[in-house]
Amino acid sequence: MNWEFHVSFDARPGLVISMARIYDPDQKAFRSVMYRGHISELFVPYQDPTEDYYYKTFFDSGEFGFGVSAVSLVPNGDCPSHAVYMDAFYAGPDGTPVHVPNVFCIFERHAGEVMWRHTELAIPHVTVSIAESRPEVSLVVRMIVTVGNYDHVIDWEFKPSGSIKTQVGLTGILEVKAANYTHADQAAASEEAHGTYLAEHTIGLYHDHFLTYYLDIDVDGATNSFVKKNLVPRRNTNTGHHRTPRKSYWTVVTETARTESEAKIRLGVGPTELVIENPNKKTKPGNPHGYRLIPGPVIHPLLAPDDGPQIRGSFTNYNIWVTPYNKTERYAGGKYVDQSQGEDGLAVWTRRNRKIENEDIVMWHVIGFHHVPCQEDFPMMPTLSGGFELRPTNFFERSAVLKAVPPPPMKADGCGVVEP
Amino acid sequence: MNWEFHVSFDARPGLVISMARIYDPDQKAFRSVMYRGHISELFVPYQDPTEDYYYKTFFDSGEFGFGVSAVSLVPNGDCPSHAVYMDAFYAGPDGTPVHVPNVFCIFERHAGEVMWRHTELAIPHVTVSIAESRPEVSLVVRMIVTVGNYDHVIDWEFKPSGSIKTQVGLTGILEVKAANYTHADQAAASEEAHGTYLAEHTIGLYHDHFLTYYLDIDVDGATNSFVKKNLVPRRNTNTGHHRTPRKSYWTVVTETARTESEAKIRLGVGPTELVIENPNKKTKPGNPHGYRLIPGPVIHPLLAPDDGPQIRGSFTNYNIWVTPYNKTERYAGGKYVDQSQGEDGLAVWTRRNRKIENEDIVMWHVIGFHHVPCQEDFPMMPTLSGGFELRPTNFFERSAVLKAVPPPPMKADGCGVVEP
Repeated sequence: MNWEFHVSFDARPGLVISMARIYDPDQKAFRSVMYRGHISELFVPYQDPTEDYYYKTFFDSGEFGFGVSAVSLVPNGDCPSHAVYMDAFYAGPDGTPVHVPNVFCIFERHAGEVMWRHTELAIPHVTVSIAESRPEVSLVVRMIVTVGNYDHVIDWEFKPSGSIKTQVGLTGILEVKAANYTHADQAAASEEAHGTYLAEHTIGLYHDHFLTYYLDIDVDGATNSFVKKNLVPRRNTNTGHHRTPRKSYWTVVTETARTESEAKIRLGVGPTELVIENPNKKTKPGNPHGYRLIPGPVIHPLLAPDDGPQIRGSFTNYNIWVTPYNKTERYAGGKYVDQSQGEDGLAVWTRRNRKIENEDIVMWHVIGFHHVPCQEDFPMMPTLSGGFELRPTNFFERSAVLKAVPPPPMKADGCGVVEP
Repeated sequence: MNWEFHVSFDARPGLVISMARIYDPDQKAFRSVMYRGHISELFVPYQDPTEDYYYKTFFDSGEFGFGVSAVSLVPNGDCPSHAVYMDAFYAGPDGTPVHVPNVFCIFERHAGEVMWRHTELAIPHVTVSIAESRPEVSLVVRMIVTVGNYDHVIDWEFKPSGSIKTQVGLTGILEVKAANYTHADQAAASEEAHGTYLAEHTIGLYHDHFLTYYLDIDVDGATNSFVKKNLVPRRNTNTGHHRTPRKSYWTVVTETARTESEAKIRLGVGPTELVIENPNKKTKPGNPHGYRLIPGPVIHPLLAPDDGPQIRGSFTNYNIWVTPYNKTERYAGGKYVDQSQGEDGLAVWTRRNRKIENEDIVMWHVIGFHHVPCQEDFPMMPTLSGGFELRPTNFFERSAVLKAVPPPPMKADGCGVVEP
């Protein structure tokens, strides 16, 4: 594997990845990608405003602690048989150490995917096709957090191509409430159901899961910029070499965010590639070294901006924020979240509109799911997954995978290497 | 595995999945999910309107044939060692049979993922936590299509939970053009680059990949409806049980598309769950049996609507279309695509605005990628993946995975079952 990084445990965010660096076979050196990455907050507002449930607007990390809520992994169930495990300790409520065995697992992921491949078909005078293919093997670090009823499977995956992928899997037991209905039609006709009628007298409440990632990306060093590559439609000029039947095309207009306000982004509005670049380091052809964010599922808040839970969870107002590094700014919902009023946190910090161009910057990325429960989620929810990819973009001079050593082909039963 | 389905080969779409049915342990019967599914078209418009490149707006399926372009899979590279393979035959240009060995592979996917799990922490008088976890093992059917420089890894994955997931992986060799530049700054300053300067005198052209899936979903029979479950913000009324500090919440407003025009959807605009339902079959609590679409990455066209390629590729104007089943309507770009003018195809058929409520309907889903090449894509692109999930939604009475038989735990070297 061409990655090296630190894995550490913290009572609040749990799994922290730091000092992630990848080996560059051209430079014959490890190059920095991410100084630190972890989940910063998980906001789960339930959508039942009636008197018994209106207060269920949980901040699972700030109120309960992601580390404190991390559970021991079940070998062969939570992680494959070839995984290795790490323990953790933290100070319990009375100060005595709490030991959590097997809190992380680390394993090579052999999912049957293709790292790269090509079949060359059109070679003159050659009748057989020439095909090259490399299977994908990546390295996964996993933690599972159980807060009450619900389990979150948190993965950080490191690929030979240079990509870091995150995945969060939602499973566990659905939050339900008792109700006096006996048929879905009654629940649908009521103003007080606020969920799906799942089973006798049982409502699965509507809710959201907003996961906020803290991503202190350091592309080849600390001083980076946040660059928006906007894909812009153009009319064909029909002059010179453009005198063709084509009437339109798109091109890329690059915009560097100078301050925090220029980096607040609601995804889904327009086609833009989002890149953390090091403007001081360029490839031989002259492109700044960068890492691109490829988003997965994103959601936007549907609570009113003046509603208490949304004021506390105002870090969900945008899917992307970029801040200058500040060691006190780690948790999007503020340092102290219990009974907070929204007086601290990402939305407040960024009001200062600090300079973020060619600085040590942190990207914050909010992903999530609107959850309309269905009967299949009850009592036990089959895992629903989402995440994002951080992918090198003009960071290497060429495909990093060309020099990746392929794993040896295994026998059909997976036991031993195929003899040549 | 609790699925049964047919796999067949067709010279045009290549891999066709049909008659997909899943076993319901409560009903003790197989129940229909999808009558037929395959990729209907792949539209790849390059974004260079200059005289040498403007015509590069490929329809890989309609112009080249996805089946005809399917390649023999490389064992241990394209598919894991435990995969099984199928051959295909088609009629060549002179009528003689063409044999394609190993055109499909089928394998169990052991990716190290969690099917479902939960740790029960708050049991009174019990100090040890009780944890249950089931690893995910699914079944994948794969075909790889190489059209010229580029390779597409096409997966259909069947999960024990009832989900069908598709994935398309983009890899192969990037399309480049020669240019008289020696530095990225020259290309950036030019009106004629239309791509990223990747290497000496080499431009990687901007382009899109639009994949259109044909999905004849038959939830418990042929007559289905297409239902939009819109997530709608509401102000709290502050009356009765709603007399609480909450000011807002969201609820679900269900809307059944009556005609084709009501089913044309550009994804990303608002939060809506999209469900194919059988309005004639309901669960015991009273919810219509359904399958929900969970989209992955989607894109929208950036070409002008009056531009020739976009008129031919007008099936990309929406990400979702729903049509009544018609055996002649299989290919979104029309039956005959070579040199077509947009006179046939999905956008034309749906102008009739036919009835789609409680009918045998077909959903068409357009996914894709805007591709701004980077140096890592050259010469060989590390696989970039996307897809979508079709997930049962009130199709089963409860979690189908509760009765799924877990695979036996394997020894750490993967060779043999762990003895109890």
